[in-house]
Amino acid sequence: MADAITSRAEDYSQWYLDVVLNAKLADYSPVRGSMIIRPNGYALWENMQRGLDGMFKETGHENAYFPLFIPESFMAKEAEHVEGFAKECAVVTHSRLMVGENGQGLMPDPASKLEENLIVRPTSETIIWNTYAKWIQSWRDLPILINQWANVVRWEMRTRLFLRTMEFLWQEGHTAHATEAEAMEETLKILDIYTTFAQDYMAMPVIRGVKTASERFAGAVETFCIEALMQDGKALQAGTSHFLGQNFAKAFDCTFQNQNNELEYAWATSWGVSTRLIGGLVMTHSDDQGLILPPRLATKQAVIIPIYRKDDEKTAVMEVAERMVRELKDAGVGVHLDARESQRPGWKFNEYEVQGVPLRLALGPRDVKNEKVELARRDTREKEIVPQAGLAERVTRTLDEIQQGLFDRALAFRQEMTTPVDSYDAFQEVLEEKGGFVLAHWDGTAETEARIKDETKATIRCIPLEAEAASLSADEPGEDLLTGKPSSGRVVFARAY
Amino acid sequence: MADAITSRAEDYSQWYLDVVLNAKLADYSPVRGSMIIRPNGYALWENMQRGLDGMFKETGHENAYFPLFIPESFMAKEAEHVEGFAKECAVVTHSRLMVGENGQGLMPDPASKLEENLIVRPTSETIIWNTYAKWIQSWRDLPILINQWANVVRWEMRTRLFLRTMEFLWQEGHTAHATEAEAMEETLKILDIYTTFAQDYMAMPVIRGVKTASERFAGAVETFCIEALMQDGKALQAGTSHFLGQNFAKAFDCTFQNQNNELEYAWATSWGVSTRLIGGLVMTHSDDQGLILPPRLATKQAVIIPIYRKDDEKTAVMEVAERMVRELKDAGVGVHLDARESQRPGWKFNEYEVQGVPLRLALGPRDVKNEKVELARRDTREKEIVPQAGLAERVTRTLDEIQQGLFDRALAFRQEMTTPVDSYDAFQEVLEEKGGFVLAHWDGTAETEARIKDETKATIRCIPLEAEAASLSADEPGEDLLTGKPSSGRVVFARAY
Repeated sequence: MADAITSRAEDYSQWYLDVVLNAKLADYSPVRGSMIIRPNGYALWENMQRGLDGMFKETGHENAYFPLFIPESFMAKEAEHVEGFAKECAVVTHSRLMVGENGQGLMPDPASKLEENLIVRPTSETIIWNTYAKWIQSWRDLPILINQWANVVRWEMRTRLFLRTMEFLWQEGHTAHATEAEAMEETLKILDIYTTFAQDYMAMPVIRGVKTASERFAGAVETFCIEALMQDGKALQAGTSHFLGQNFAKAFDCTFQNQNNELEYAWATSWGVSTRLIGGLVMTHSDDQGLILPPRLATKQAVIIPIYRKDDEKTAVMEVAERMVRELKDAGVGVHLDARESQRPGWKFNEYEVQGVPLRLALGPRDVKNEKVELARRDTREKEIVPQAGLAERVTRTLDEIQQGLFDRALAFRQEMTTPVDSYDAFQEVLEEKGGFVLAHWDGTAETEARIKDETKATIRCIPLEAEAASLSADEPGEDLLTGKPSSGRVVFARAY
Repeated sequence: MADAITSRAEDYSQWYLDVVLNAKLADYSPVRGSMIIRPNGYALWENMQRGLDGMFKETGHENAYFPLFIPESFMAKEAEHVEGFAKECAVVTHSRLMVGENGQGLMPDPASKLEENLIVRPTSETIIWNTYAKWIQSWRDLPILINQWANVVRWEMRTRLFLRTMEFLWQEGHTAHATEAEAMEETLKILDIYTTFAQDYMAMPVIRGVKTASERFAGAVETFCIEALMQDGKALQAGTSHFLGQNFAKAFDCTFQNQNNELEYAWATSWGVSTRLIGGLVMTHSDDQGLILPPRLATKQAVIIPIYRKDDEKTAVMEVAERMVRELKDAGVGVHLDARESQRPGWKFNEYEVQGVPLRLALGPRDVKNEKVELARRDTREKEIVPQAGLAERVTRTLDEIQQGLFDRALAFRQEMTTPVDSYDAFQEVLEEKGGFVLAHWDGTAETEARIKDETKATIRCIPLEAEAASLSADEPGEDLLTGKPSSGRVVFARAY
C-alpha cells in the first residue's frame, strides 16, 4: 500500500494527494472541484469541530443556522464584498426540471425561472446582517455571539482536495457589538482560540498577525490570521478573524439605541476555519508512509492487532486483547481492536500506518506467554516490547509524548525555515532555494507589495502581532528591501497555498 | 409575551407559528420558504443530533460528507427517483455573476453557463451510489454503513417553519450490503433507533409501520415509518427507513464479487429524519403559554432566577444561587443562572416559560432565610416551595417525572384519538368531528386508497407492523370500508402534515 504513495522528495504535490486518497480521507466527486469526505476524513473534522465548538461555547457563543441561498441583490450591498465574493459563485436560476425536448434527459423548466436569482452562499455576512438588522433594536440586544457550522461554495478553477475545493465545510462566526472596543476584543479572542486549537490540538505551530490591506477579507477593516508552514516550505493560511467595523451594519441599516438613547450602527466581527485545516494537518506531520495524526484529533488513538494461527492461540490472544481494550477505554484512550479475520495482520499493520493511527499494539501468543505487548509509534516508527502490567499508563504517556513531539518537530522545522533577509537578492535566493517564511522589511505600500508578488510569487502572509514579532526577532526598525524607505519591523513573506 | 401567542382553540396553525417565533426557535428568511434556525432551535437540533448520532455510532455507522451538487444527468438514472425528486429542485446554471447591463445590480455572466447543470441535492442516493460503485468490489468491502448530516433543498410551494421548508437539515443514512436479509435487518434496526429516539428523547409516542406503494419513497422497495399524532389530531410522519433492494445498485452499476466468486448487485437502505422533528416536538407538547421541552432535549433543563432589591439581599441571594448551580451541575443537570440586571424577574419568568425550560427555580431573600427555594414545573405549571437541602436529588427526580409525564400525556391523548371504525360513514364522521388516527380495513388496492384520499383528504399513514397492530387491536381480519373486499387487518388512516 505504501508503494502507492509517491515520496515527498519525488513530487510533493502528488505525495499529498496520495496520502489523502490512501488514508481514505477524501475522494474525488463526479462534480469537478467538489470532494467526498470519507469517514476517516469526516471523523477528523468531527474531532476538530468538537474542540473548536467547546471553546466557542465556553466563551459565550451559540450556534445557529442561516439559509444556504442568498438573494442576488444582497451580494451587491457592501461595495468591497461584491468585488470579493460576487464574482465566482453558484447561481440558482430555476426551480424545476422537466424532461428534455427530445424526450430524453432533463432540463430546467423555462416556466420555473426565478424572479430573483439565488446565490449559493460563499460566506454569510449579507444574509446574517440583513437578519441582525431585524433582531437588534437596543443595547440590551447586544452582543449577539453566533456561530454556524455550514457548507459554502466558491467557484474555484484550480482545486485540490481539502486545500481548495468548490464546496467546503467550515464554521463562520458572526458577532454584533455595541462598541468598537468590544468588537476588536472579540476579534482577538477568536484569534486566541484559533491559535490554541492549531497548536494544542493540531500540533501545528502558527504565526499570528494582521493582513495587509490587499490581503484583507472583502468588507473587513482589519483581518487577523494564523499562518502555518507546510513541509514543502509553503505557507498555509489556517484561520482568519475579521474586525468588520460598521461596514455591514451600514450596508444593511442595522442600528441600535445606545444607553444614552442615541441611534448607532452596530459593530461587527466574522471569523472562520474550514476543512482546509485537514489539508494543513496532513502537510504538517505526514511522511512517505502516509498520514500521521496527532493523538488529540485521532478517533482511533491506538489499535490492537491480534496475531494467531491456531484456535487455542486465538482464545488466549483474544482474551488478553479484550482485557487490554477495557483497561485502555477506562483510561480514556480511543482504542480499537481489529479482530477481522478477513484480513491478515500484515495488511492491518500497513492499513493503520497509512491511516496515521498514533499507536499500534501487536499481540501474539509469545507476548501472551511473556505478559508483554509490542508497542509501535507511528510518528517515530519506533517499536518496543513493553509489559502488559501498567499498559494504560504507558499508552497514555506515550500518546502525550507523540502529541508534544509532533508539535516540537514542526516548530523546529519552522524555525529552521524562517529566514531574516536584508536584500532583495537574498530574498529571491531564499525563496528559490530554501522556501519557508522570509522576514523582511517593507515600506507599507501596496505598490511594493504588488511588485514583490509579481516578481517572486511571494505574498505578505502577515504583519506579525507585537509579541509574535518579538519572538521572531522581527520587531527592530529597518529599510524596505526594494525602496529603502523606513519600516518599523519585519513582515512575514512566503509563497503560499 | 404570552399575549403574543394565539390560543390553540382559536387558531391552531397560528398558535404553532406563534410558539416557534416567540420561543425564538426560528425566524423567516428573506428567501421565501427558507428559514433561519435561531440559537434556541439549533440547540434543540444539536441535542437531537447527539442522541441519534450516538445510537448510529453504537450500531457501527460512520459519518461522511457527499457533495451538495448533483449532476443533472444523475437524477434521471433511477426511473422512479426521477418522478419523485427531479421535479421541484434548485437548478444551478451559472458559475459567475457580473454587473448588470445598465451598470446596476448583478446578473449571471452568460459566459459562465455550465456545460451540465447542477442540482442542489434533494436527497443523495444518486451521488452516493455513483460513489459506492467505485468503492465496492468484493464482499470484503461490505457492509458500508454511512450516515451524513447535511442540508437538502426541495422546492416547496406551501411552506411552514420546520414542518415544510425549502431547505432543511437532516441526516441521511445510506448503507450497502451483501445480502437482501442483511439490508432488511438494517432497515428495521434503524426503525428501532428512530422509535427509541422519538419515544425516549422526544417523549413522542409513535406508531411503526410500512407505507403503501403510493406513499413509498421514490426508488424504494419498502418504506418503513414512524407516525406521530399532533394535538390538532393530524398525523406527522416523523422518520422513514427505506429498503431499496437493488434498484440503485442497478441504476449505478454497483456490483461486487460474492464469497462464491459470483458478481452480484449490492443491496441498499436509506433512512432519514430532519429538522421537521422540531415541529413535531412543538406540536406534541406545547401549550397556550408557549413551548414545553422534554428535559432530555433541553440544554437549559433548569433556570435559577435570583430575586432581590437591596445590595445586602443580592449578596445573600447570589451566594446561595451560585452554590445551587454548583450542586446541580455536579449532579449533571443543565442549569442556567440568569443573573442579568438589565431585565426584571417577572420578565425572566415569562421568557423561560415561553421558551419551555422544564424547571424554574426562584430564589428570594425570604427563601434564603428559610433555606428554601421555589420550584415551578413548566409542564404542569405547578409551584412548590422545597428545602435547599437535597435539591439536586429533588431536581433530578422531577426532571425524570417531567420526561415520563410528557410521554404519558401524549400517549393517553393518542389512545383517546385512535378510533376503530367499520363503515365509511363512521370513517368520515370521525375525520370531520374528532380527527386523529382512524383504524379501518382496506382491501390493499391503490384505487381504494386514492378514492378515500380524494374524498376525505385522509391518507394511509401506515400498515402497522405486527406487534404494533396487536397493541392497537388492529390485527383481526375484516372487510374494506368501501369495497367490502377482505382485509387481514386494519391500517392507520389520518389527515397529515
